[in-house]
Amino acid sequence: MPKVLITTIPFGNPEPKPLKMLEDAEIEYTINPYNRKITEKDLIEIIANYDGLIAGTERISKNVMDIASNLKIIARVGVGTDNVDLNYAKDNNIMVSYTPDAPGPAIAELTIGFMYSLLRSTHTANLLMRRGKWQRSIGRSFSEMTIGIIGAGRVGSKVIELISKIGCSKLLVCDIHHNEILRDQHGFEWATKEKIFTEADIISFHVPLTGDAKGMVKRDQLLSMKKDVLIINTARGGIIDEDDLYEVMKSGHIGGAAIDVFDQEPYEGSLMDIDRCLLTPHIGSASRECRAKMEMEATEEIIRFFQCKELLSPVTETEYLPQKQ
Amino acid sequence: MPKVLITTIPFGNPEPKPLKMLEDAEIEYTINPYNRKITEKDLIEIIANYDGLIAGTERISKNVMDIASNLKIIARVGVGTDNVDLNYAKDNNIMVSYTPDAPGPAIAELTIGFMYSLLRSTHTANLLMRRGKWQRSIGRSFSEMTIGIIGAGRVGSKVIELISKIGCSKLLVCDIHHNEILRDQHGFEWATKEKIFTEADIISFHVPLTGDAKGMVKRDQLLSMKKDVLIINTARGGIIDEDDLYEVMKSGHIGGAAIDVFDQEPYEGSLMDIDRCLLTPHIGSASRECRAKMEMEATEEIIRFFQCKELLSPVTETEYLPQKQ
Repeated sequence: MPKVLITTIPFGNPEPKPLKMLEDAEIEYTINPYNRKITEKDLIEIIANYDGLIAGTERISKNVMDIASNLKIIARVGVGTDNVDLNYAKDNNIMVSYTPDAPGPAIAELTIGFMYSLLRSTHTANLLMRRGKWQRSIGRSFSEMTIGIIGAGRVGSKVIELISKIGCSKLLVCDIHHNEILRDQHGFEWATKEKIFTEADIISFHVPLTGDAKGMVKRDQLLSMKKDVLIINTARGGIIDEDDLYEVMKSGHIGGAAIDVFDQEPYEGSLMDIDRCLLTPHIGSASRECRAKMEMEATEEIIRFFQCKELLSPVTETEYLPQKQ
Repeated sequence: MPKVLITTIPFGNPEPKPLKMLEDAEIEYTINPYNRKITEKDLIEIIANYDGLIAGTERISKNVMDIASNLKIIARVGVGTDNVDLNYAKDNNIMVSYTPDAPGPAIAELTIGFMYSLLRSTHTANLLMRRGKWQRSIGRSFSEMTIGIIGAGRVGSKVIELISKIGCSKLLVCDIHHNEILRDQHGFEWATKEKIFTEADIISFHVPLTGDAKGMVKRDQLLSMKKDVLIINTARGGIIDEDDLYEVMKSGHIGGAAIDVFDQEPYEGSLMDIDRCLLTPHIGSASRECRAKMEMEATEEIIRFFQCKELLSPVTETEYLPQKQ
């Protein structure tokens, strides 16, 4: 009877169907016994017993895989694979699958919600009210905004779709691949990231954490932006340098920021001191609908694997490439 | 030279054009000398000197008008007139004008932003993060929601318009007047408020504070709603009983609330103790675009009045009626 460790939590709640499916397939499972985001060290301690892993964004390194002598499959609940040493997994005959399409709509909705919050500073007002400060600030509206989207992949394209429904003054999009069908549908303008940095009123990042994206936004880039720019990161923590963001916001530059992803999670850094920074604990894909879809897809992959069927969503070759550089 | 008191603040900032227009029309003005929301008592102290009033939502009562022997015109920057004793103004030959169409888009955007925040609990997450709690809650998405809109007037219809662009599972609308053109455009279903209370996942209020609306939502109505319902009030403070809302939320009922308007403003009440309550200081119309439009329209009314021209937006007869009851 294969044994599977489920590290990502919550899992099977509120939708218990994936757990039922594992039981029906006679797969034994353990849900994260630490009941918090699992660390590399935690994993090393317990992974040896397991044949499969239903994983979140925790680091699954060479060290983890060296101990995991039974491990044959990692099914990521989500899209990013930067936490998995993919090439080392391949060398050790550990299959890795993921759920690349499921999170898009949920991350896009979080992103659009962040735009609304930042435009009217509702997150800041909520903090101030609770400190007894009734301070009405004058916000802005979508119709006046130049919005810049960095990355038009699975998530970015969903964000673009929603913005084009809501409407804005101008939409600039940066991507290596120019998807002209998407452009024709939504009527935006392709732009370099430098143009977006200097011209946009709202900038949102939707790129994977590959070599290029890491540290894409540091002090110089932040200072090149408009003084009242609103910036959003729902992609990966390393894209915007957190210390530089703190320093630049502390100095009065940047109108507002919404950050859902961090270099080290749980985040405990200095951005907490900036009232106009909206902070959330990596909840991009945390919607009932999206979680249910991702948990189901990852569970189905695990079951397919142990029933010796072909995987539906193995991580594609292109995802392996950037880590080789 | 006519003298005008401007009580609503900020005014002429960031857009100084209305002040310039008053100067050009040789109208002397004073901007709220208290630099906070003005009270009835403040007004009584200073109003005697003024011929005109560019007003916010402060109470303009019989007592104020009795002192205001020179007052001939009140130009409300905004749409609600529940703060003005309209019939007493009429009896004393004080004209009242307002800017009924300007706030709609800005209030609608705030409302939709509130829906996004409540759906993902980003306001709560932001509070918890700052207390060192990394707690991922599972949110919901628009596509799963039954949304109920109470009031389909100038603001409600703008909210309906935005929701129909974004998409939801089902849209229920309650209004005395059934605007079938609006219904045909956006494909919602007319419903009683009782049906909305019991069936909707999100409920948003967009009614004026007339006799019917005051205390529309008390303990019984709140308890008749779904346990995880999300409720939004960007209309007027008296519509939802604040103490009842606190008690019911404290007991665990109601998934989240976003409240922009209060019985007594500035608000200092017990809802501050409820983390899943998003509180903002009456900023519905506080967007650059909307404020500029409202300030301009109110200023133009004042100028028209002192130049003995006909007013463009006198408060209509129908607004006077409810107060007579």
